[in-house]
Amino acid sequence: MIEEKFEAVSQRALNSVEGIKRTGLKIIDLKERYSKTLMPLEGNVNHVGMMYAGSLFTIGEFSGGIIHLVSFDINRFFPIVKEISIRFRRPALTDVTLEVSFTKEEADSIQAEAEKNEKADFTLDLEIKDQENEIVSIVNGVWQIRKIPEGMDVSI
Amino acid sequence: MIEEKFEAVSQRALNSVEGIKRTGLKIIDLKERYSKTLMPLEGNVNHVGMMYAGSLFTIGEFSGGIIHLVSFDINRFFPIVKEISIRFRRPALTDVTLEVSFTKEEADSIQAEAEKNEKADFTLDLEIKDQENEIVSIVNGVWQIRKIPEGMDVSI
Repeated sequence: MIEEKFEAVSQRALNSVEGIKRTGLKIIDLKERYSKTLMPLEGNVNHVGMMYAGSLFTIGEFSGGIIHLVSFDINRFFPIVKEISIRFRRPALTDVTLEVSFTKEEADSIQAEAEKNEKADFTLDLEIKDQENEIVSIVNGVWQIRKIPEGMDVSI
Repeated sequence: MIEEKFEAVSQRALNSVEGIKRTGLKIIDLKERYSKTLMPLEGNVNHVGMMYAGSLFTIGEFSGGIIHLVSFDINRFFPIVKEISIRFRRPALTDVTLEVSFTKEEADSIQAEAEKNEKADFTLDLEIKDQENEIVSIVNGVWQIRKIPEGMDVSI
């Protein structure tokens, strides 16, 4: 379920980047500091019938942006992705899901650092799971939140 | 320029995975143990006008497959991707290109190992460059070539 206050922003997150939109990525659950997304197998298979590596990357990469939207003050901070590693542990033969969350303490600490230093890195260690709850891919990434400069339009 | 003997296989590589095809990725040059690919900015921008991280990943990930096709005996070996790291060094604001190559010695050594052990890992350290020849992203990946089991159809 998507919390009502995040409805508009979640739609924009899915639709404002064509490369994300065309995968059919879905947000299943979204609330304060928590997101669960789903990448459908349909439309994302490779030539041997398993999920394409790039679509697994997309659900991982999206997590850094969506957790930003529900954890930080998006009127004052915007996210960038610095680096991502993805390990393909086993073939993904079903739709896959990914959960990402921050505690209030984690989110507050990151935003406080960005408040002070204009920017703050955050890391996410993520597990992409198939419908049998097996981990198909492991994602480790570094994102950064930055203070929005005066006059800069970074709305999504 | 695509060498004539690789024309058919290059078309199948671009078209057999929907997630690759829809990015508009192009193969510019293809010959024995060498490939140059191009990811167009058009159709691959994010919400702030730079190339979407997932499309940069795709050109990197594709390199492991395409270099396999022009370096190894594709009737006897197939590739898989094990892990990929990508570092987003600066925004990509133009089309980007990526060159990948093996020396004959490198290719022969990898295939000989796979001949002996049924499989062999290979690593690629790749630079994605913009039209000003600036490195926008750095990709490090591990792929594996495996002997095709009798009766298995892995044609692309």
